[in-house]
Amino acid sequence: MVAENSRKVTIAAIAREAGVSVPTVSRVINGRSDVSAETRERVEELLTRHRYERRATAARRTTGLIDLVFNDLDSPWAVEIIRGVEDVAHAAGVGTVVSAIHRRSTSAKQWLDNLRARTTDGVIFVLSELAPPLQAELRRLHIPVVIVDPAGVPALDAPTIGAANWSGGLAATEHLIGLGHQRIGFIAGPPHMMCSRARLDGYRTALEAAGLPFEEKLVHAGNFYHVTGFEGGMRLLDLPDPPTAIFASSDQMALGVYEAVRRRGLRVPDDVSIVGFDDLPQVSWSSPPLTTVRQPLSQMGMLAARTVLRLAQHEKIESPRVELATELIVRDSTAPLNK
Amino acid sequence: MVAENSRKVTIAAIAREAGVSVPTVSRVINGRSDVSAETRERVEELLTRHRYERRATAARRTTGLIDLVFNDLDSPWAVEIIRGVEDVAHAAGVGTVVSAIHRRSTSAKQWLDNLRARTTDGVIFVLSELAPPLQAELRRLHIPVVIVDPAGVPALDAPTIGAANWSGGLAATEHLIGLGHQRIGFIAGPPHMMCSRARLDGYRTALEAAGLPFEEKLVHAGNFYHVTGFEGGMRLLDLPDPPTAIFASSDQMALGVYEAVRRRGLRVPDDVSIVGFDDLPQVSWSSPPLTTVRQPLSQMGMLAARTVLRLAQHEKIESPRVELATELIVRDSTAPLNK
Repeated sequence: MVAENSRKVTIAAIAREAGVSVPTVSRVINGRSDVSAETRERVEELLTRHRYERRATAARRTTGLIDLVFNDLDSPWAVEIIRGVEDVAHAAGVGTVVSAIHRRSTSAKQWLDNLRARTTDGVIFVLSELAPPLQAELRRLHIPVVIVDPAGVPALDAPTIGAANWSGGLAATEHLIGLGHQRIGFIAGPPHMMCSRARLDGYRTALEAAGLPFEEKLVHAGNFYHVTGFEGGMRLLDLPDPPTAIFASSDQMALGVYEAVRRRGLRVPDDVSIVGFDDLPQVSWSSPPLTTVRQPLSQMGMLAARTVLRLAQHEKIESPRVELATELIVRDSTAPLNK
Repeated sequence: MVAENSRKVTIAAIAREAGVSVPTVSRVINGRSDVSAETRERVEELLTRHRYERRATAARRTTGLIDLVFNDLDSPWAVEIIRGVEDVAHAAGVGTVVSAIHRRSTSAKQWLDNLRARTTDGVIFVLSELAPPLQAELRRLHIPVVIVDPAGVPALDAPTIGAANWSGGLAATEHLIGLGHQRIGFIAGPPHMMCSRARLDGYRTALEAAGLPFEEKLVHAGNFYHVTGFEGGMRLLDLPDPPTAIFASSDQMALGVYEAVRRRGLRVPDDVSIVGFDDLPQVSWSSPPLTTVRQPLSQMGMLAARTVLRLAQHEKIESPRVELATELIVRDSTAPLNK
């Protein structure tokens, strides 16, 4: 029996099944706007179900635009990625269309409608997940896709650019151990994100390599946001035998730990050393300036733009997943163990 | 004698002066790409000098794109404005092209070239200045322009959206006076920016209204960046009779004052109360969370997008300059005067 996805579906068959004419199906496939929303939806649903693929035309007109799509634009690192993408696109004479699809399918649909009307040379997603219908639709339109993925989700069906999370977790923990700290708290990100796990594993491996025990009660389950850093900091500082250093696996959480330290009448780094993860531009303004692991966000954006422009030229990409190096930036929130 | 700008210049006259054919001038005017860079430059220079205006065609094709142009994308509030613009544009089915022109004329030129090739429904500038040749070129292309201008530069030749800086300066200072502070330091922004002056004037007026003296030595000349807040904080705290509260006229400078307070072994707000200006999303993560004056940046972006889309529809705009209200956000960096 022939598997459904290898069977060649014809436009005529789609038209028959949708109860519309062949030219109407063609209009939908070619992204023309003179089709009713209802008809377009029915035809697209069938195209997706039958995995219809539009013939790739090497001569596809370039549009001088690439798309950069976020779930939300409220992330403090969004502007870093925009800056990297814009830098490369601008130099190539290409405009960068920035969108937020708010994790809502209506919003994604609206974005796709706009995209279909004006077309694009390629799309960069900054997302931890990509809805399958969206993936299918972009594949059918033969629009190159690249994913910037600081979260480290595996198995996305497109070239992916991430950061070396495990090495970063290792370096941060080794730095604290090198300063003499032996009880080091850890505030984790969401467990379903690979980047959270990689950072935790780096922390654990550094402890093990130094012959220090890994203690569950020194690990707090956070979600990368400020409040969970604050809560985790409070909980860890209130332990009978509190840690002398805390590694928070995001900058936002690290700043939450600052606030917990202040609330307890203690001082950074005199009483507690703190390391973050991200190196958002504003953490050098924290007081004291935060020691943290730098994710090269704008470089990730630059590489994503270069990759999508190469795909638009039908070039082959060497590796489906690239991890850029992280780097420990030592500032004033870490100090040798007191005593 | 007829003033030069009211004289009607013809395409034929431009062609003669440039030593090219009439169709070549037309191609330049219509933004076609099949003209050499050199010729385009010469023709454009003449079009600008003679103030040639392309006939506005009510039937100009909309492109489903608006442009949002920054000097640099390194400003911490850039993402707030992008978010506001994208929100309105997205809902209107319009894509938002984000660019940075880096204060360089080559970069602005490259952006204009890309713009000419793909066209746009309108441009929002987030700039404190707009080079006259750029203004002239956009006017000739009949592209609607709106300016988002947190800096408050007057007399830009386009509808402008700013924030109520004077009222914000007044509210911040009144808040500190209400807490019993009488010696209140002020860290100013660059004196050539209207917003700096408006905030300083609000501070001065609040003091005067409360019968408090305005003392030059309590005012430090900053530039909105972190380091000048730090320097100003150090200088003010080292005065023989230091202020008990400091109003820094940007959040970045307020965080610099935090660091000065820490360096002097003092605490916020126990020893020194601090107020900032902007309400960047990350200042609620400062430790303690910063009391500040909120500039409604994303609303400014939303209004800019709505305005440019209305201009694209040839609607009339009521007011060439709109100031959105600022709002004092009280958090934990301000406290009643101790004693």
